Amino acid sequence: MTLSDQPPAAALVFQTLLAHGPLTRAETGRRTGLSPGAVTKVATPLLADGWIAELAEPAPKRATGRPATLIAVRGERARFIGVKVTADELIGVVADLTARPLVTRRAVLDSRDVGTVVLAIARLVEELRAAVPTGPDGSGGGGGQDGSVQDGGIHSIGVTISGDVDGQTGVVQYSPFLNWHRVALAQLVETATSTPTVIENDVRALTVTEQWFGAGAGLSSFALITVGAGIGCGLSIGGRVVSGAHGVSGEVGHLPVGGTERTCTCGNTGCVEAVASTHAITEQARAATGDPGLTMTQAVRLAHSGDPEVRAVFTRAGHALGLAIASVANLIGPERIIISGEGVATYDLFADQVRETFAARAFGAAAECDLLLRPLPFEEWARGGAAVAAQHLFAPPK
Amino acid sequence: MTLSDQPPAAALVFQTLLAHGPLTRAETGRRTGLSPGAVTKVATPLLADGWIAELAEPAPKRATGRPATLIAVRGERARFIGVKVTADELIGVVADLTARPLVTRRAVLDSRDVGTVVLAIARLVEELRAAVPTGPDGSGGGGGQDGSVQDGGIHSIGVTISGDVDGQTGVVQYSPFLNWHRVALAQLVETATSTPTVIENDVRALTVTEQWFGAGAGLSSFALITVGAGIGCGLSIGGRVVSGAHGVSGEVGHLPVGGTERTCTCGNTGCVEAVASTHAITEQARAATGDPGLTMTQAVRLAHSGDPEVRAVFTRAGHALGLAIASVANLIGPERIIISGEGVATYDLFADQVRETFAARAFGAAAECDLLLRPLPFEEWARGGAAVAAQHLFAPPK
Repeated sequence: MTLSDQPPAAALVFQTLLAHGPLTRAETGRRTGLSPGAVTKVATPLLADGWIAELAEPAPKRATGRPATLIAVRGERARFIGVKVTADELIGVVADLTARPLVTRRAVLDSRDVGTVVLAIARLVEELRAAVPTGPDGSGGGGGQDGSVQDGGIHSIGVTISGDVDGQTGVVQYSPFLNWHRVALAQLVETATSTPTVIENDVRALTVTEQWFGAGAGLSSFALITVGAGIGCGLSIGGRVVSGAHGVSGEVGHLPVGGTERTCTCGNTGCVEAVASTHAITEQARAATGDPGLTMTQAVRLAHSGDPEVRAVFTRAGHALGLAIASVANLIGPERIIISGEGVATYDLFADQVRETFAARAFGAAAECDLLLRPLPFEEWARGGAAVAAQHLFAPPK
Repeated sequence: MTLSDQPPAAALVFQTLLAHGPLTRAETGRRTGLSPGAVTKVATPLLADGWIAELAEPAPKRATGRPATLIAVRGERARFIGVKVTADELIGVVADLTARPLVTRRAVLDSRDVGTVVLAIARLVEELRAAVPTGPDGSGGGGGQDGSVQDGGIHSIGVTISGDVDGQTGVVQYSPFLNWHRVALAQLVETATSTPTVIENDVRALTVTEQWFGAGAGLSSFALITVGAGIGCGLSIGGRVVSGAHGVSGEVGHLPVGGTERTCTCGNTGCVEAVASTHAITEQARAATGDPGLTMTQAVRLAHSGDPEVRAVFTRAGHALGLAIASVANLIGPERIIISGEGVATYDLFADQVRETFAARAFGAAAECDLLLRPLPFEEWARGGAAVAAQHLFAPPK
């Protein structure tokens, strides 16, 4: 059995159990809008093929009636490898069907050319495959009788990368920091690893794990804004991550907030990224101090010690981020905006300005949007790749 | 029978027929992901109660097999009144279940205080009720045997208004141009007209009709940007109009695009609306010409005659709109952006600048987003109110 042959109701039941399980059949029906009969009908083949299981422990007995049996996704049924590509390293993880991480590894990237990166991904995948523990339940070694789970228990790979990534066709249309144009990355990794591979924009992939298992679980809508080498944004509306009709969405880094004459990587001026990215902050701190060799770490130290010019650089970045966050709140009206990325390590330096600008620019009730600071290490981003691969169980890429 | 008692699958079938019908049962199943049996099951009570009907004409016969029967929504089954409130007049329409307009009327507003506006709405509703034709099929006078369709065949009223409108609670939280705060408008109109009433933000309501019956039909996502007294935006993603978790969404008019020291109605500077609204254009043209009595019509005439200062005002507005449109494309990635509103009457004066700025600021493949200019008179906006009322057949407001 492959899950992609199952009816849409099966995907709905499975994903509901993934995000909210264990649940009784009755509660699964309430949450999906399916009748009890329909839940039982789609659950039966999923049970038979080991994708879900009945828990031994029954749900607490209600005042009247029989105790109801809980059903849940069997995490060990399939494993996925997630790889996040940054400018100078790869971060890899093996996760189970519920995106629980089992093993993580990192690998330095010597070069950014396509061939080197693909080879490095293949080597990291081999290393992860070798390191993955084979559980006492035998789940690591075997696989489904129909071959849907491959040798070593790895079902598929999800590679995530920043830029304009078309998950449907598996092509990186444009990745500014790698300077890649139209790279058929999914196919290249699939050939190098002999394992089905999907690719996704890294922020969108992280948004998927936040939606299913993180600070976005159970929300009607949320945005994830990542601050670091770039300024990214993932959007989840009505339980679905917005991917953009043409592959582009969440490009909050290029909102034209003005306030700078610095030229952005995209060629325009006034972009959020041109003021608030790690690189932009470092360059502005160098200009402010007149020290062309100043590092980000030194800039942070100067700001903490009260240097007014360097502090002003962080305040300006905070203002640009506050404008970007307010723009997302005003346009989409999410329940919550999660702020993450490497940049949150120094968030104390601009947090006040972010909140002040947000409060001033949020329109009406948009100000009620919950701002949540949430550090997520790169291993979490890699886990996003595994979650995206798991998502494709029901909807394989073209 | 009331439709809100029907299972979710019934709403899915009904809305699919509304947007894409007439369809065969098989095609309805394909589009909804429901099995043929499930389609037949939910269609039976809808047929029995006259919400949908089988067409006499069968679908074109296929090479083999019996001709399939088409099913379609019966537009005459229920009627709705839509009212759009502007700063100085009301525009009303009676539409059938498929949002086909039957009668339209306008009424001047003498004052913007709540009592006056509610009374004027009640009077307009009476006028529309009296003017609505009673068809030879008797649909205008009767109603369902269970009373679900009211006297005169008007099922409910949908009032639309710009600002922060909470459709779920029926409260206008804030409407800047009427200077209303926390007005329980739905309840007030319901009491004054003795007819169930829902309210909605006017741009969102227009987005609903564009999604079902207009330039957004069949698209995976689109945005509607309206240019006029304000700059508004409606978003449709995955077949649903985005309403915002806190009631605010689509506030593109307050994106901080900079380029002006003019103070916006929201109290900030740099907003799109502070440069590109009708009022902002008129004021800037007055400043440019030194004529404090200059009207918008005169400003347009001066621009058409080639006055460089006045032309520059329109170009600046076009640049701000181009930035706003690019921001929506970069953040949401819609398939199409529809540009409408009263302001499109003078769109030739800034169209070039809009396209130039959009092309420069759209990030990567976001530039492939289709920009569509589409004049929609206020009667279309009023029709949006009727469509929103019809939407509540399946999901009555709290």
